[in-house]
Amino acid sequence: MADRSLIFAEAEFRGRVHRLQARMAEEGLHALLLTSAADVFYISGFLTRFWESPARPWFVVVPAAGDPVAVIPSIGAELMGRTWMPIVRTWDAPDPRDDGVSLLTETLCALTPTNGRIGVPMGLETHLRMPLGDYGTVATRIAPRSFIDGTATIQRVREIKSEAEVGLIRETCAIADRTFARVPEFVAAGKPLDEVFRDFQITLLQEGADWVSYVAGGAGQDGYGDVISPAGQQPLAKGDVLMLDTGAVRNGYFCDFDRNYAIGRASDVAKRAHHALFRATETVLERLRPGMVASDVHSLLIKGLTDAGATPSGGRFGHGLGITLTEWPSFTPLDQAPLREGMVLTLEPGVVTAPGRIMVHEEDIVLYADGPQLLCRRTPADLPEIHA
Amino acid sequence: MADRSLIFAEAEFRGRVHRLQARMAEEGLHALLLTSAADVFYISGFLTRFWESPARPWFVVVPAAGDPVAVIPSIGAELMGRTWMPIVRTWDAPDPRDDGVSLLTETLCALTPTNGRIGVPMGLETHLRMPLGDYGTVATRIAPRSFIDGTATIQRVREIKSEAEVGLIRETCAIADRTFARVPEFVAAGKPLDEVFRDFQITLLQEGADWVSYVAGGAGQDGYGDVISPAGQQPLAKGDVLMLDTGAVRNGYFCDFDRNYAIGRASDVAKRAHHALFRATETVLERLRPGMVASDVHSLLIKGLTDAGATPSGGRFGHGLGITLTEWPSFTPLDQAPLREGMVLTLEPGVVTAPGRIMVHEEDIVLYADGPQLLCRRTPADLPEIHA
Repeated sequence: MADRSLIFAEAEFRGRVHRLQARMAEEGLHALLLTSAADVFYISGFLTRFWESPARPWFVVVPAAGDPVAVIPSIGAELMGRTWMPIVRTWDAPDPRDDGVSLLTETLCALTPTNGRIGVPMGLETHLRMPLGDYGTVATRIAPRSFIDGTATIQRVREIKSEAEVGLIRETCAIADRTFARVPEFVAAGKPLDEVFRDFQITLLQEGADWVSYVAGGAGQDGYGDVISPAGQQPLAKGDVLMLDTGAVRNGYFCDFDRNYAIGRASDVAKRAHHALFRATETVLERLRPGMVASDVHSLLIKGLTDAGATPSGGRFGHGLGITLTEWPSFTPLDQAPLREGMVLTLEPGVVTAPGRIMVHEEDIVLYADGPQLLCRRTPADLPEIHA
Repeated sequence: MADRSLIFAEAEFRGRVHRLQARMAEEGLHALLLTSAADVFYISGFLTRFWESPARPWFVVVPAAGDPVAVIPSIGAELMGRTWMPIVRTWDAPDPRDDGVSLLTETLCALTPTNGRIGVPMGLETHLRMPLGDYGTVATRIAPRSFIDGTATIQRVREIKSEAEVGLIRETCAIADRTFARVPEFVAAGKPLDEVFRDFQITLLQEGADWVSYVAGGAGQDGYGDVISPAGQQPLAKGDVLMLDTGAVRNGYFCDFDRNYAIGRASDVAKRAHHALFRATETVLERLRPGMVASDVHSLLIKGLTDAGATPSGGRFGHGLGITLTEWPSFTPLDQAPLREGMVLTLEPGVVTAPGRIMVHEEDIVLYADGPQLLCRRTPADLPEIHA
């Protein structure tokens, strides 16, 4: 597209605002204050990597009725002006005397009654992306209006993806699919892991990623120690299992899945682990339906792994996916969140292959009434081997 | 390096902690609670792209004396265990019942007296990276201990870079230098801007970036509309000025500078603007000394631009740089922060070239007692032309 602010038609954004306003009415909210990159993008389509700079706060206020309002640093006026956002108010940031505090206060007061309740995401998986001190000042200055927890409002709406969103996530997944298909081009025994990570990112860009927000992985005999470390310089060795995982981004939408490869001939341990992981996700692909809760997926995955004779690892076994690398819910024994039609999710079981060694496997899906649909190409049932 | 936790010797981290503790003593703080990726990395060396997932909070607590304590999700135990951090406490996150709240509360209470004052960064350029609701719960449970603003404590320490840090920033700048030298390889009239951005990122990776956290730029006749938009598909045209700006990362340290190129023959407007930008930064390179304040740099840049007959643009004209893309202070008329020996800074003046069009130019420097030293290769005085 010529203009990234036109990723969606205006109707997509208006639909989001209406769904938020319907929930706000139920919950007695007079406005919703959003500060994170993802939430601001969700309402406005404002997409920039400038969030990488912590210098300036950005705000979107969704009133109980009517159009949302962007309250942003003037450096963003040009880009926000190209979005559908009907009202954009700016200040010259950074301003050490008043970095948007007065403008935000004014905006909130103008949009809500004197005793207004203003939702702010305060729950799990949320952060306030503005200085805490300024938040306190705004809270004081809007009184007797008050800030209350708006997490459920934004999460219940954002978690249901429109078909336009599913299409974009599918597109990003396809970039990673094509990249994983090319892994044998740049992986070989003897190659240092950090060079593998570098070539993996390069290939993702070549295949169409706008940027690569997340790459992780690991390599080791029959498994790896953890899945969040940056790559070291140790060379790949025959007998290693290599895992590559990516959250690439196109049009603001993430993929998040991984693939495993044996370097040289796969060991029996690694083959069995891969089969168990494959079988566990297969079970969920067959049985998952809307109305189940997040912990049901965890149970299904655990059962699939143990039925296959594997030892499940700890941690969560998948999560939501969309405009951040991970979204709620979490496939853990504790998360009772209902799984709803239109959710985009990852299935990410892990097994222990040896003391301190694990293998993990991940697929991206969308949940429909009749079950899940894969958004990425299914991993092969047999652990692929790289002979080079 | 084989292990990214060994970017620095332990003495580097211990020095940081001691400097923080000296400031904490001055400011009457009994502990400092840090939650952001940059602050956690600064204390521990814990470097991972996993921060891209908003699911889990991570904490480092620096007591008034003694060793810092990491309080983190167990998924990070392996990686944190490879850092120097002497005490690592973990919980199984995400836990919807108690996502680290009790463990953090306990840790803070054990490390501080009953009436303890615990610093939390609350000021400009800071964010609390934990759910606001959980922060409120911890605040209640540590009472009569209290959270107070710890911004100055962390910022006055972080803003002075050690020679080891300067060396790493120089290394990242060199990656961008080599990449900018290769721009003529992948830029030509007719090429869509989004393909240029993609090749720019690929080249940064090829030249040694671990990842590319920030790319921005613009292209247009005699200048560009803004400097934070993602690239569209419009092709480069003869007469365009192309600007590419990057915050690439190696070993956790950023560069942040840009370069301008004329596509085909440079227009007189663009040439004059580039000369004015060059001359303005030249003035600062000659005159900047510790003891000046941030607004002095803004004044020098404005004077340099107007002396050269150019019209300065608005906004800030540079900032700190290090483990985030931008750090304090800001080169604006309002920022009175003292400039100190050891600060790493960017000079980033902008000029208006036509209505709605600007050109910006950026250099990275370290400030020493006898003046600044460039960390990147100086931009050529004459706007480079790309004839292809």
